[in-house]
Amino acid sequence: MDIAMDRSALQAFLEAHFPQAADYEVDAVTPDGVVMRLCPDARHLRPGETVSGPTMFALADVGIYLAILSRIGPVALAVTTNASIDFLRKPLAGRDLRAEVRILKIGRQLAVGEAILTSEGSREAVARASMTYSIPPQRGVK
Amino acid sequence: MDIAMDRSALQAFLEAHFPQAADYEVDAVTPDGVVMRLCPDARHLRPGETVSGPTMFALADVGIYLAILSRIGPVALAVTTNASIDFLRKPLAGRDLRAEVRILKIGRQLAVGEAILTSEGSREAVARASMTYSIPPQRGVK
Amino acid sequence: MDIAMDRSALQAFLEAHFPQAADYEVDAVTPDGVVMRLCPDARHLRPGETVSGPTMFALADVGIYLAILSRIGPVALAVTTNASIDFLRKPLAGRDLRAEVRILKIGRQLAVGEAILTSEGSREAVARASMTYSIPPQRGVK
Amino acid sequence: MDIAMDRSALQAFLEAHFPQAADYEVDAVTPDGVVMRLCPDARHLRPGETVSGPTMFALADVGIYLAILSRIGPVALAVTTNASIDFLRKPLAGRDLRAEVRILKIGRQLAVGEAILTSEGSREAVARASMTYSIPPQRGVK
Repeated sequence: MDIAMDRSALQAFLEAHFPQAADYEVDAVTPDGVVMRLCPDARHLRPGETVSGPTMFALADVGIYLAILSRIGPVALAVTTNASIDFLRKPLAGRDLRAEVRILKIGRQLAVGEAILTSEGSREAVARASMTYSIPPQRGVK
Repeated sequence: MDIAMDRSALQAFLEAHFPQAADYEVDAVTPDGVVMRLCPDARHLRPGETVSGPTMFALADVGIYLAILSRIGPVALAVTTNASIDFLRKPLAGRDLRAEVRILKIGRQLAVGEAILTSEGSREAVARASMTYSIPPQRGVK
Repeated sequence: MDIAMDRSALQAFLEAHFPQAADYEVDAVTPDGVVMRLCPDARHLRPGETVSGPTMFALADVGIYLAILSRIGPVALAVTTNASIDFLRKPLAGRDLRAEVRILKIGRQLAVGEAILTSEGSREAVARASMTYSIPPQRGVK
Repeated sequence: MDIAMDRSALQAFLEAHFPQAADYEVDAVTPDGVVMRLCPDARHLRPGETVSGPTMFALADVGIYLAILSRIGPVALAVTTNASIDFLRKPLAGRDLRAEVRILKIGRQLAVGEAILTSEGSREAVARASMTYSIPPQRGVK
């Protein structure tokens, strides 16, 4: 699939539209999707210094959303309709969290992607998430 | 199932262990589970004044977790292993978000619960979430 | 929501369109959805005489599908796009399996429902499933 | 992770324990998991000659189960506790269905795996499923 937004266009979109953008970084646009990164700070941590579940959920959500936009462009109002997430291991303390995102489908009405989360420097999956987004009938560009 | 922690015990546990506790309130312990409430503020909102997906995820997660504790007591380190969530409608602007939580199973190793989220004053479901928690072999009390 | 197909219309649709229709029965159309029943026979059983996971999946899928049709009528080609299911307990041997189905949303593009499965004569949930269906742009009637 | 059961041991286990074994074939044991194959016949088909959702669910379930056994050996009574599945495209008519299974975690209590289903000869994903299995405290060997 063609690339509609490159790494810097995604990063600019993120900073313009997400209040928590400072936490995230678009590492790369890949043939399958994107790679995202979260630098956890105190707000993301649970007792025991591990990243909280909702923070991992948010990283996967932002990453899959941007992966879809990287192919279809800055479509207004695509919304998450469904998500499933498996929490597999504790993230390593003091490490960035990486999300490798792979697009599984971009249809007329629905787009589906998947994210595998790992701690920087480790290959073991910390979490796996898949999410579905509803694409509005007219692809209005923001 | 017997009640191990009542409303005020859950609220105290919440305030002692969750950094974002000020956002949440335990409304009631019910025969099936609990009712939770979130008073959204700016940090929870997305453009368009709706509550964000990760915020709804977090409300369901906290609510189902507390519902389980209301039956088995303050077990240390029960962790979420799996979650699925359907986002059904936009929450109403300016309203509290309610979560009606129902326990589906409390086994030796796993507990499962479900939350239906609604906007205060409306009966239509905004989101539905089910989550599984792993219960550690020894139920150490905090 | 108005009822578009009653119990006998759903049962007739089931028998006309599903090869395994003989296994299923529409017990009731309810204000929230429908109640379905499966009479398990040897083909549905796993070692230990319990109903297999795919059989429970199929019961929830048929039940939620018929619940949606009970409101929007016999729409051709609505397809399941996503499903999540929690297997909670072994079904009781030698008992029918009941599915209480509740519709959560019927939108223009997507419909979402949930099923709670129990063994006949027991109130404990054997499984919980939620499923999403994509509704084709033109609601062609079969 | 070490291999506890090779392709022919898994195939023999399948034929000994699954009534529908004739439909399935273990293609390969891979570094990440296994590759499974289903040769659909009339029983698996829905109107339009496509493989039914429950049949895809069953293929993913058997495949992930065997992938886990390929590492831990023929453990009795490991049961599916949770599954989520996205149906992405219609399978191609008249083609075998392949499942590439990847193990995500094998812990003491829980094992998690994922399957990507494709039609033979196509690279596009037809479905994606992730499933969790509870491993009994004593790993009794059958």
